[in-house]
Amino acid sequence: MPWALILGGSSGLGLASAKKLAAHGYNICIVHRDRKSRLDDLEVAFSEMIAHGVRVINFNKDALQKENRKKIIDQLPKQRVKVLIHSVAKGSLKPMSGPGTKALSKEDIDITLHAMGSSWYEWTRALIDADCFSKNARNIAFTSEGNSKAWPGYGAVSAAKATLEALMRNMAVELAPLDITTNCIQAGTTETPSFLMIPGSDTLAKMAKKRNPFKRLTRPEDVANAVYLLCSDEAKWINGTVLTVDGGESIR
Amino acid sequence: MPWALILGGSSGLGLASAKKLAAHGYNICIVHRDRKSRLDDLEVAFSEMIAHGVRVINFNKDALQKENRKKIIDQLPKQRVKVLIHSVAKGSLKPMSGPGTKALSKEDIDITLHAMGSSWYEWTRALIDADCFSKNARNIAFTSEGNSKAWPGYGAVSAAKATLEALMRNMAVELAPLDITTNCIQAGTTETPSFLMIPGSDTLAKMAKKRNPFKRLTRPEDVANAVYLLCSDEAKWINGTVLTVDGGESIR
Amino acid sequence: MPWALILGGSSGLGLASAKKLAAHGYNICIVHRDRKSRLDDLEVAFSEMIAHGVRVINFNKDALQKENRKKIIDQLPKQRVKVLIHSVAKGSLKPMSGPGTKALSKEDIDITLHAMGSSWYEWTRALIDADCFSKNARNIAFTSEGNSKAWPGYGAVSAAKATLEALMRNMAVELAPLDITTNCIQAGTTETPSFLMIPGSDTLAKMAKKRNPFKRLTRPEDVANAVYLLCSDEAKWINGTVLTVDGGESIR
Amino acid sequence: MPWALILGGSSGLGLASAKKLAAHGYNICIVHRDRKSRLDDLEVAFSEMIAHGVRVINFNKDALQKENRKKIIDQLPKQRVKVLIHSVAKGSLKPMSGPGTKALSKEDIDITLHAMGSSWYEWTRALIDADCFSKNARNIAFTSEGNSKAWPGYGAVSAAKATLEALMRNMAVELAPLDITTNCIQAGTTETPSFLMIPGSDTLAKMAKKRNPFKRLTRPEDVANAVYLLCSDEAKWINGTVLTVDGGESIR
Repeated sequence: MPWALILGGSSGLGLASAKKLAAHGYNICIVHRDRKSRLDDLEVAFSEMIAHGVRVINFNKDALQKENRKKIIDQLPKQRVKVLIHSVAKGSLKPMSGPGTKALSKEDIDITLHAMGSSWYEWTRALIDADCFSKNARNIAFTSEGNSKAWPGYGAVSAAKATLEALMRNMAVELAPLDITTNCIQAGTTETPSFLMIPGSDTLAKMAKKRNPFKRLTRPEDVANAVYLLCSDEAKWINGTVLTVDGGESIR
Repeated sequence: MPWALILGGSSGLGLASAKKLAAHGYNICIVHRDRKSRLDDLEVAFSEMIAHGVRVINFNKDALQKENRKKIIDQLPKQRVKVLIHSVAKGSLKPMSGPGTKALSKEDIDITLHAMGSSWYEWTRALIDADCFSKNARNIAFTSEGNSKAWPGYGAVSAAKATLEALMRNMAVELAPLDITTNCIQAGTTETPSFLMIPGSDTLAKMAKKRNPFKRLTRPEDVANAVYLLCSDEAKWINGTVLTVDGGESIR
Repeated sequence: MPWALILGGSSGLGLASAKKLAAHGYNICIVHRDRKSRLDDLEVAFSEMIAHGVRVINFNKDALQKENRKKIIDQLPKQRVKVLIHSVAKGSLKPMSGPGTKALSKEDIDITLHAMGSSWYEWTRALIDADCFSKNARNIAFTSEGNSKAWPGYGAVSAAKATLEALMRNMAVELAPLDITTNCIQAGTTETPSFLMIPGSDTLAKMAKKRNPFKRLTRPEDVANAVYLLCSDEAKWINGTVLTVDGGESIR
Repeated sequence: MPWALILGGSSGLGLASAKKLAAHGYNICIVHRDRKSRLDDLEVAFSEMIAHGVRVINFNKDALQKENRKKIIDQLPKQRVKVLIHSVAKGSLKPMSGPGTKALSKEDIDITLHAMGSSWYEWTRALIDADCFSKNARNIAFTSEGNSKAWPGYGAVSAAKATLEALMRNMAVELAPLDITTNCIQAGTTETPSFLMIPGSDTLAKMAKKRNPFKRLTRPEDVANAVYLLCSDEAKWINGTVLTVDGGESIR
């Protein structure tokens, strides 16, 4: 059975993807960062996946630490990781001007670019070096309309999404000879835990709902469905692109 | 069983899509324009589809004529057309300057914009007016990198692709309440009969092959696979977008 | 003195461009379509231009008619038209579904694509054939955010803007050897007479103002300034692009 | 007289911009990094600028060091910097897979993202904090087609260009209230010293020349001309955009 490794897989788009893939016969490895209080809920989710007859392992560790990465990859079988999903959301939401540490600093930008951008490449390369990827593998990360838009306070995240997509395109070209396709999914506005932490997210959600041609928000399951499609054999020629999955929200 | 109506379905991307959908249980209606000499080959293709236990009907008629459109739609069942695919390729390849009729005229542009652009909308609207679309329907057309590039002699086709995509976005918004999603697939360089008619197509093919991260051209089957994915239930939230299916060719 | 030929030059972006160019030493030829009641106002505007010491001629004729085009071009001097500006706004704003003629028809689309799209190419080619363009000439048309967005009722105009930009790119490539650069200016929301005819334009204007980083709408003078810049010698390497002139409105 | 501060102003696009602005009455402050052997040539260039009656100061210091930044800004007058130009080119050109340090590392990416991306924001913010920007100021950085393309070995630079553009958009929105416009110029292939260091740059140049509608490469002066245009009063409504200055190269 193929494995799916999901970074940031304990909530939102990552968890929904894990569930969908587990239901279709993928073993699941989730790397996440959660407080004790959430672990009971997570156990329920893991049990549901296991009920599909697949293996589920999880690491409650910071996916951005090199040592953790090494330890986790050591436990993955060789040539069996069919899917890597990057769903790490951790970024600064500071404005670009203002007094002292209230404004976005180089360090804030660096942390955000790493967490939501270049860490994807680090994991990819580490999996390649450890010979973990299977044939016809899929490398997927989540982006958002913020890649090309500018909202106050969103500068660092916007830059990270842009970085993520640039790295995606380059991995798509350079890793094709290794039989790996690389793509991003641009999800519409989804009420994930990360989204709800953005100041004014309720207003954003209301506007997005109104703007969406289907008059509802994007759900994690909508995006998980697209992940599933990209993992199918029929998707092997989709490489180096951003697949928008938002019901049409972004074109209005 | 759901129906797929394929305009320009006797060769290239259209025919490959028909085969794929037939293999997955769709009844097929093909509108095409072919000489007698090709009909025997087509019969073979149709027989292979029928062998999957589906119905296959075809009309060797000009899809761009209003009367033909009406006659064809009259023979389709109500509320059963799950998929409309626009794969009409008919355009002027004249340059933008030069003596007299050697240069692109308004008439050349009009014919191309209609054939490769607005005829898609006409068929869509006619199917709506005749109440032919099923629930959760899919409306798909093929575009190319020529949408945003400019190659000598390609002006009319480029404008038609741009028109097609603009209409796609607007249908995505306006037809969502009718439970229809609308998308384009941007195929990589594919050696279809239409492509081979472009002067210098062999050079273009050679360059595309070299440029492609997977070192091969796009095949009609690659694109048909993407059509199949867009028709799945899991794709219902993909609306108003251009899905690039080219192995990564266009990002190099 | 160089000539600027402005199609749709009696109001909005076209008139503002005419004024700016006249103030910088361009003879002006305006093609427009206005009722008698407006002609007195126009005479005032023309007088102001003439006060700069330039010639101003105008034709109150439909720029979309071939015969008119021929007559007007016959009166222009050879090799002296430095600038062609396409500012024709005439399009259908019908929805894409609904009963009978209330919904957008092929004819509606054709008229809009011609008026706001391919007529630009027709004029360009006619000026080339009549040997009117000067050295280092500029070919400029106006587009809008509607090129890539989809708003209900805006389907035909959106397609026309997409067509316009595709033709722009192809003219940029094919007419470079004739020493003509071709570009579009994407203006932000501007309260031109054409804009004010859009149903709900007051709401659109209010939203645009709020969205704009500078908290005001785009003014015709802002766009005329960009036209002027594109006409300068320093702009001769700007070719085949869309220059956005909106204060940053479209990135929010 | 207004000041222009040019980061990376001793060669290529930066130097050409300095010369153009000096010729039009700007005092020039150049931050650069050059070996002794180049300094004589630079002195000649500086003398030519001074001959226009402007002041020219230069700092042969690493623009990426915080201490240097502070020292340099301390010597700039308050409220007089009309233009900041970021022209720093320093990036890793390693491939994305391969043995050990031959492949792109997180550190390589970080250095590149900082040098060619976030350092722009750092300088901008430092100038704001030191109250150096004049009214109606201009903030400009150079990007390339590599923002959206993927070439082997170009991953880090591509990500940096994407970061640069994302930061540009966000600065455009957030700094508009401070009367600063922010834009990028996307230059065509130019034989700058940085470009010539790319392996295979001669082949790239040959292809670019062939591809360009004007059959020549972009020259530093072409780009400096666009900088000059963006600095004019007429450009004050151009904000948050990427202005392509390549003769049309990128659309073919």
